[in-house]
Amino acid sequence: MKINGNRLLETLKKLGATGREESGALSRVAATDNDKAGRDLFVSWLKESGLNVKVDQMGNIFGILETEENKNKEPIVIGSHIDSVINAGIYDGCYGVLSGLEVIRTLKENNYKLERPIIVGAFTNEEGIRFQPDMMGSLVFVRGLPVEEALNSKAIENPELILKSELQRIGYYGNEKPGFFKPYAYLELHVEQGPILDYEKISIGAVENLQGISWQKVTVHGEANHAGTTPTRLRKDAGYVTAKIITFLRDLANNSNEKTVATVGIIEFEPNAINVIPSKSTFTIDLRNPNEEKLKANEEALKNYLEKLRIEEGVEIETERLVRFLPVTFDERIVKIIESVAKDKNYSCRRMTSGAGHDAQMMSRICPTAMIFVPSYKGISHNPAEFTEDEDLLKGTSVLLDVVTKL
Amino acid sequence: MKINGNRLLETLKKLGATGREESGALSRVAATDNDKAGRDLFVSWLKESGLNVKVDQMGNIFGILETEENKNKEPIVIGSHIDSVINAGIYDGCYGVLSGLEVIRTLKENNYKLERPIIVGAFTNEEGIRFQPDMMGSLVFVRGLPVEEALNSKAIENPELILKSELQRIGYYGNEKPGFFKPYAYLELHVEQGPILDYEKISIGAVENLQGISWQKVTVHGEANHAGTTPTRLRKDAGYVTAKIITFLRDLANNSNEKTVATVGIIEFEPNAINVIPSKSTFTIDLRNPNEEKLKANEEALKNYLEKLRIEEGVEIETERLVRFLPVTFDERIVKIIESVAKDKNYSCRRMTSGAGHDAQMMSRICPTAMIFVPSYKGISHNPAEFTEDEDLLKGTSVLLDVVTKL
Repeated sequence: MKINGNRLLETLKKLGATGREESGALSRVAATDNDKAGRDLFVSWLKESGLNVKVDQMGNIFGILETEENKNKEPIVIGSHIDSVINAGIYDGCYGVLSGLEVIRTLKENNYKLERPIIVGAFTNEEGIRFQPDMMGSLVFVRGLPVEEALNSKAIENPELILKSELQRIGYYGNEKPGFFKPYAYLELHVEQGPILDYEKISIGAVENLQGISWQKVTVHGEANHAGTTPTRLRKDAGYVTAKIITFLRDLANNSNEKTVATVGIIEFEPNAINVIPSKSTFTIDLRNPNEEKLKANEEALKNYLEKLRIEEGVEIETERLVRFLPVTFDERIVKIIESVAKDKNYSCRRMTSGAGHDAQMMSRICPTAMIFVPSYKGISHNPAEFTEDEDLLKGTSVLLDVVTKL
Repeated sequence: MKINGNRLLETLKKLGATGREESGALSRVAATDNDKAGRDLFVSWLKESGLNVKVDQMGNIFGILETEENKNKEPIVIGSHIDSVINAGIYDGCYGVLSGLEVIRTLKENNYKLERPIIVGAFTNEEGIRFQPDMMGSLVFVRGLPVEEALNSKAIENPELILKSELQRIGYYGNEKPGFFKPYAYLELHVEQGPILDYEKISIGAVENLQGISWQKVTVHGEANHAGTTPTRLRKDAGYVTAKIITFLRDLANNSNEKTVATVGIIEFEPNAINVIPSKSTFTIDLRNPNEEKLKANEEALKNYLEKLRIEEGVEIETERLVRFLPVTFDERIVKIIESVAKDKNYSCRRMTSGAGHDAQMMSRICPTAMIFVPSYKGISHNPAEFTEDEDLLKGTSVLLDVVTKL
């Protein structure tokens, strides 16, 4: 039994050509007209394939293949999302959803005897560009957020528009209650959105866990003074203190045996003048580790270091928590199946951690879950330059097919 | 012979009350109406004191006290500036000019027999806020810049206005050629604009030199990547490289026995997003040392460090020179006289380096020059909160008087 590679690549291209701006940019932001165009195309394929299509109140779309014999059993679900960021690439999310569709089509065409129903799902608003929070559809599906609250969330461009009315407008406010079925297992195939597989020339990532994320905003209050006349020992240089923190974070990452990553992405000095010592520096810290205890230890080490700097440098330091997600550990049995399938096929494979958030992290709350990654060229994502070789795409979908049959 | 302290403080207050915006902010920016108001007041005092007033083509104003006997001798000049930054304090520049006036008034009232003429001068556009470069009037006076070129410089708010037409408009395009007399010596009394005297509770600074200044703009080109999915070893983090440079500069300053000061005052990251590794960082470096060889060595050490980072971190680093001033060494004989006068008066005194630029650095090119500093509260300057105790102001002017008579 083999997937139809051309058909898969064709659907990926067609969906990628749908929902583009006049400029040519692909922007299927959640619950916009462009999103509707992508959804309509996807639903037409589900129907064409003879699947039972159900849409829930969150606009999550499910294509169900079931038989009289297996319809009372818990289904295997393959999912991801087809909404996108602004000016996106064509793989993020779509590759997983359309691979699910291809797997179902292949099973059906081969009259494969399914012990359980199999469902392909596209979750609403994974990107969180227009409505907060991100991964919203799957979060509500697993009852991590009340459906009413999610439907009331306001569009970023116009607070008078709420998700519910926007879903109604595009025709995707469905009848089903989110969580209307309980999966036996959840699988998500995704482009890595990171450089590891590409850099190491490995075809398949067996994703064993997903990093915990800690975002903080830090403000250092020093003292503005003349850059020429203030001796070093009398300085309270908010910029220097910031530089110390950035190098401390790098040391933290280096000493963590590659598990911790730390990034300072946003920075602002005041008064931001060439000959004035910065009186104030505001910056963000993005800290991630797949192990909650270690992430906590990193946060604690950072806190202690800030206290040390406060005393040594005579500055005040405020921190504000912006985001905190617990790490997720995926299902060991499924991860092992992914590894063994890749081995059987002679595809290079490694275990890895997802650095980004995915719908799988929500689904793992209610059923055994794992993810399969394929390489992203240079790790580029959320960008039209996002790219994965066709060969890698087909390998990923083949692995997905065999994992489904083994399950 | 004693200065009239009340008169000095009175003139300082009156000049400080002149040239204010409706908001109350003091802004006597060069060749504006507010500058004219300050100049008119100063000239009225010069005339009231029976001085011979001369204005050169740069708008530099000189009040000359000379006699038939000494008029062919080189004059002692006491100078500074009365133009200001926007929203300024009342001391910067004005204190030196008005102390010069007070010294001349005192000498005159006491019928002190002057061996040489004595001149109080106010140089045009020391601040360089509206016309570039700063210290322009004194620079042209010492023939460091052709007068035509300076007069053609464009106002920052409207390039159709040039300095010449603005000086003509306010009535201060004078007849004299800049440099129309050669000083025997030049003295400048100034508030420190730095915290050293205030911090060390010292009354008088005998300024022996003025720092060389090296300003550079640095751009680090790294690679934008996902903050969650990019392992530390694969990062080309322009922000981290910047932090390394900032801490390197602090080490450079710490290892220089307090002579080097280094400041990164301006910074900007791109794309400046919380979960994206900075692809680009642009920042400024302000490096100062009173010794040219040492300043050069610092610049060289920085250059080597940038090269090291370029290789180690896989980034590209561009540097652009913005400003480079040679250090200035003041006249040892005059510095010693300042010290001995302070000692005679039982005023605490220390030798020091000026971290900021002053008209004295230009004048030192053509005659023996030195500066006297008095404390600035917390080193605050270019700010309405600029403050020096009356007692310290009077001490400084008393020292100036005695230095003049000893010269």
